[in-house]
Amino acid sequence: MPSKKHIISDLGEKKLIHRIIKKTHNLQQDYYSKHPLIKKSLGDDAALMDLSEIGPSKNFLVVSSDMLLAKTHFPSQMSPRERGWKIVTVNVSDISAMGAIPQGLILSIGLPGDMEIRQFDELMDGVLEACNYYHIPLLGGDTNESSQMVLSGTIIGSVEKSKALMKSGARPGDIVAVSGDLGLAAAGFEILLSSTLDQDKIKSILPEKIIKKVIQKALKPQAKIKEGIIAAQSGNVTALTDITDGLASELEEILKASDLPLGIRIYEDKIPLPDEVKKIGEFFSKKPLDMALHYGEDFELLFCIKKDALASLKDKIKLMVVGEVTSTGNMEIVDKKGNINILPPGGYQHLEG
Amino acid sequence: MPSKKHIISDLGEKKLIHRIIKKTHNLQQDYYSKHPLIKKSLGDDAALMDLSEIGPSKNFLVVSSDMLLAKTHFPSQMSPRERGWKIVTVNVSDISAMGAIPQGLILSIGLPGDMEIRQFDELMDGVLEACNYYHIPLLGGDTNESSQMVLSGTIIGSVEKSKALMKSGARPGDIVAVSGDLGLAAAGFEILLSSTLDQDKIKSILPEKIIKKVIQKALKPQAKIKEGIIAAQSGNVTALTDITDGLASELEEILKASDLPLGIRIYEDKIPLPDEVKKIGEFFSKKPLDMALHYGEDFELLFCIKKDALASLKDKIKLMVVGEVTSTGNMEIVDKKGNINILPPGGYQHLEG
Repeated sequence: MPSKKHIISDLGEKKLIHRIIKKTHNLQQDYYSKHPLIKKSLGDDAALMDLSEIGPSKNFLVVSSDMLLAKTHFPSQMSPRERGWKIVTVNVSDISAMGAIPQGLILSIGLPGDMEIRQFDELMDGVLEACNYYHIPLLGGDTNESSQMVLSGTIIGSVEKSKALMKSGARPGDIVAVSGDLGLAAAGFEILLSSTLDQDKIKSILPEKIIKKVIQKALKPQAKIKEGIIAAQSGNVTALTDITDGLASELEEILKASDLPLGIRIYEDKIPLPDEVKKIGEFFSKKPLDMALHYGEDFELLFCIKKDALASLKDKIKLMVVGEVTSTGNMEIVDKKGNINILPPGGYQHLEG
Repeated sequence: MPSKKHIISDLGEKKLIHRIIKKTHNLQQDYYSKHPLIKKSLGDDAALMDLSEIGPSKNFLVVSSDMLLAKTHFPSQMSPRERGWKIVTVNVSDISAMGAIPQGLILSIGLPGDMEIRQFDELMDGVLEACNYYHIPLLGGDTNESSQMVLSGTIIGSVEKSKALMKSGARPGDIVAVSGDLGLAAAGFEILLSSTLDQDKIKSILPEKIIKKVIQKALKPQAKIKEGIIAAQSGNVTALTDITDGLASELEEILKASDLPLGIRIYEDKIPLPDEVKKIGEFFSKKPLDMALHYGEDFELLFCIKKDALASLKDKIKLMVVGEVTSTGNMEIVDKKGNINILPPGGYQHLEG
């Protein structure tokens, strides 16, 4: 009776991950009694390992893994070189969200047997271009045959134990800020995924420079590694994550990760939505705000910052304040008229995407 | 002109990996000038990282990644739980081949959206059963939708800097030994992949106990982590690798990794080929010897051992001597009549499998 079957796409990615974490918590209890940190960081942007046992260290090892699949993650226009760049960037972004310094990348790949060697070389050129850009070595990996391209990266980094930044840690009164404009990558993907007819239309409406900018942002994003490291060193950031699934989804993650009954209030007119996002959103009749709240892919960072430290941190990195941490227990967005509305988490769900 | 296209399946996995390593060597030269170890271990069973820069340590961090795909690696009879067990085992085996102690696993998975939640839970049960068996935590990972099941693991371990064992390091006169019987997994896969008619036939010829044993070996292999650690601690093992692609292929890896013009001579009558492998091989008209030389999947270890230390190491771990390291530059096998023949490397090629 197929209709009776419970399948994982009914759950979606977040519930599936929650299910894995719950099961892991149950089955690895014995381990956690000796290693509480492992339990604490499971489900964060990256895992934190205390290396003290294998040698004294003032640092945590920071490890994270991200997989990209052709059908789910790569628009057809994305070149092999851009795909190679992106698998490195998504992984680096995960540890930048811990304030960590990247130390190396492992890459396992599955490729169609009929992939041209020329394309394969371009893919690896993109991987190594990104590794060199982020100053990390490619440490190793595995190659396999796969009907569709699968790129699975694991990034290894380090962060001073006292400085590591997790999703948890925000406090009422903290300032909520992002590291840059939101929605640009979403705008780029809208164009890339649209019909050639629409593409011709929008090219006739908007200057080429703008089209190029948003498509570049979609095809070749850059992880905010410097900003993460500075945030961690400052000691004034209470929670940090990278915005891969949209601002709303990441704000929810911050609330969920906290032991306190936190709330967050953001302000529509403070969200950094560039004109090009508004124009492109309107062209495709998408609400520009949704492209910032529910799309992601910009790889900007989301900070919770001690109020009195905002100014000093602003001198060091680009920060755009979008709201504050509250104790209401709600996620709220204040619209341009000043009305307070509940902000639905939503966010991009890979298993549904 | 498709006929003119050069595609990666023309190369096969080993040439493809060699291509990646060569390109990486070219593009990351600047990095290697400061970190020669990273260059040295690229292409070995696992990467070695010197953590001194992020805190003093008497240990190397050992990192390796292995990906398994349903179509390429999993016979249909393999249960979700067995698949989960195997992705952990193949990764643990890679660092056992460095003499390392496993410290944690990262797992990224791609799954069909219509996979039953029940099966998903079994998959994760297998992963966590294996993690607990090898005493490692599941550190994190990523989930995605994929047309076929993709499991990509990254294992992190540690080994004393002075004890780490690589493929390089063998010296003429060293004893070549393996950690256990060879060909059992191959025999199991022969049965699993055969027609139901053949399966019924062989079940009528061989005792159920034997069938169960070889199938178990194929579906639920175990990494020889203890043997690797003891080998490293002994200080008397000069080279170590795990046998995943067949004895011949791994012997070739040992020769390639050496700076010396080494040769290896093994003896047909010394290769531990259990009777069940001979019987099953003959039934499927496969040369039993080939099942040991060119199949792998047993996850046994291959040791090169200082001659005078063999006895003391034999007291601590199971060792089966198969030959010795020479300086002839050739891979040789001595047949049962005493004739010396050249041993072709061959081995299982994932991209052709």
